[in-house]
Amino acid sequence: MAKSNDNGFHSITWEDDHLRVIDQTFLPSREIYTNLNTTGQVWEAIKNMKVRGAPAIGIAAAYGLYLGARDIRESGFESFYLEIERLKEYLESSRPTAVNLQWALNRIMTTIQAHKEKEISELKDIILQTAQTIHDEDERLCKSIGENGLEIVPDEAHILTHCNTGALATSKFGTAFSVIWHAHRENKVKTVWVDETRPLLQGARLTAWELKKEEIPFKLITDSTAGFLMQQGLVDLVIVGADRIAANGDTANKIGTYNLAVLANAHDIPFYVAAPYSTIDLSIENGEAIPIEERDTAEVTKIGSKEIAPAKIEVYNPAFDVTPQHLITGFITDNGLIRPDYKKNLGNFSSREVSMKK
Amino acid sequence: MAKSNDNGFHSITWEDDHLRVIDQTFLPSREIYTNLNTTGQVWEAIKNMKVRGAPAIGIAAAYGLYLGARDIRESGFESFYLEIERLKEYLESSRPTAVNLQWALNRIMTTIQAHKEKEISELKDIILQTAQTIHDEDERLCKSIGENGLEIVPDEAHILTHCNTGALATSKFGTAFSVIWHAHRENKVKTVWVDETRPLLQGARLTAWELKKEEIPFKLITDSTAGFLMQQGLVDLVIVGADRIAANGDTANKIGTYNLAVLANAHDIPFYVAAPYSTIDLSIENGEAIPIEERDTAEVTKIGSKEIAPAKIEVYNPAFDVTPQHLITGFITDNGLIRPDYKKNLGNFSSREVSMKK
Repeated sequence: MAKSNDNGFHSITWEDDHLRVIDQTFLPSREIYTNLNTTGQVWEAIKNMKVRGAPAIGIAAAYGLYLGARDIRESGFESFYLEIERLKEYLESSRPTAVNLQWALNRIMTTIQAHKEKEISELKDIILQTAQTIHDEDERLCKSIGENGLEIVPDEAHILTHCNTGALATSKFGTAFSVIWHAHRENKVKTVWVDETRPLLQGARLTAWELKKEEIPFKLITDSTAGFLMQQGLVDLVIVGADRIAANGDTANKIGTYNLAVLANAHDIPFYVAAPYSTIDLSIENGEAIPIEERDTAEVTKIGSKEIAPAKIEVYNPAFDVTPQHLITGFITDNGLIRPDYKKNLGNFSSREVSMKK
Repeated sequence: MAKSNDNGFHSITWEDDHLRVIDQTFLPSREIYTNLNTTGQVWEAIKNMKVRGAPAIGIAAAYGLYLGARDIRESGFESFYLEIERLKEYLESSRPTAVNLQWALNRIMTTIQAHKEKEISELKDIILQTAQTIHDEDERLCKSIGENGLEIVPDEAHILTHCNTGALATSKFGTAFSVIWHAHRENKVKTVWVDETRPLLQGARLTAWELKKEEIPFKLITDSTAGFLMQQGLVDLVIVGADRIAANGDTANKIGTYNLAVLANAHDIPFYVAAPYSTIDLSIENGEAIPIEERDTAEVTKIGSKEIAPAKIEVYNPAFDVTPQHLITGFITDNGLIRPDYKKNLGNFSSREVSMKK
């Protein structure tokens, strides 16, 4: 269960009795690690984006459930399970859009149910083991995503990506970032266009930081520069991650993803979504049913402590948007490349995992 | 020649022997006015965007030419004119994309040529008078633009705008902002979506500041949120300004304008450009010939003094993009609304002004 990372840093590690995460709100200027000892601390870390990225949130939440579970004093299964359900709902409230969070917690709930005859202390161990399994699986999944994405990257590729989908957002390698990382190892990457991803600047702060560490050639741009680059023929493909994929392929991801999908479509540029299977939510027919988290206005009006807008104004700050399936060229998953018809092909692909979901 | 402004502030005023401008780099937190006494100070103010907005730049440059001219000690016309040409080229180097700057300076040169028989001291007065005429005309033009734009604003309008095109960017009223201002007076504006306009945040800092002063309802968004709003049916029309319009209608404006034009087109939302005639450059056949200014990387990697990206990375920071004419629903000008065919209609429209251009 090696969690060491080629990048020389660990975004999430389990250390015997607590979770240790890199606090992403301090990047890129400072590399600070934080220990999380309680469910509440994990909730706060997810809410305030110390831990972020759909897969990383799922992993952290799974450990977060264990951190709460180990302190439960109930001895009967029913009352123990009731407490666990309460912890689960609490953790789910930290980021409503990312389905991996729900997926990871549901998987633990299903596993507990399957062992309801066991002692409470054993159940607690099972929760921790399941969290660790989710963690390990994610690393393998991310590696597969990167390898499976190689075929869609042309030589001398100019790749545009959005937000952060790297090792920081996952256990290792990342999702969209994993494709870039693996393509770079094969000398296929000419340059990566990293958009800054306002308001929280995950591109400028985190993706730029990871690419620099990996010595992958890149240039930072503002989010508004994407269309101009495409118009000039400077983008060969766009690869983004996903927070939730509906059964028909509609995809929720960081705000601005939809802009890029429309722009790519207008310029006949391939637009790919890279994601592990836990991001696919077959219970949701299409994107209209995906809840969109609206975040604090201060994310837009302040950068750090600096006010960049007049005081007391109205702000609209949705954290995600939904890209309709017809704008997506393909999904790069751990199980291979998925092309349209998504309604048919996403269902087939994830059917083996459906039993793990609620 | 009243320069007083309904907004309670003056972006540019000529005060007997010097230019006084509001230093826009301090907005919205502080309202600081700066006196400019030399051509060099005007150049620096334009270069560093203390004065910005295509029309305002033209006005400031015109006064800037006078500030240099009045100190010229040559007594013969030829040597005087040579010195003026040197000043003109210097001022033009401050912002290469905005055509108003060249237009204003060319207009002064033409006027000087027409009075070459006059005394040098008289010529200096003529330069100042021409600058003041350009200033006054701009105010009238901006008012006409606002009035002429009324017909394209529906009732209960949700208008999306980009960058700053208000009184700060002109002598008064603005261009795209003037349409919003006049529509608001007619109670036609439900809300204005103001995108922040990275990297220099003219939307968040300046347009939000002007709208707040005018008590026009608005909400601030990140640049990436535009597509999502359009997808949700929350945008009725887009109005932007222009830095240079080619003879065929291709329009250079603040980076991100092209993104909005593509998005508006994909959602069947009208996309208008509001600009005075001095923005139309009939000498340029199409957008390909418009020079695009690339600005300092620190505009993207720093906000104020705060570093928001890793140190020593590559950045691509074009200040403008070019929106092709087929994405533009119409031009709102002081001479009325111009619809396609632009190649034909822009030429007709500005023919009366061609004599003023070089």
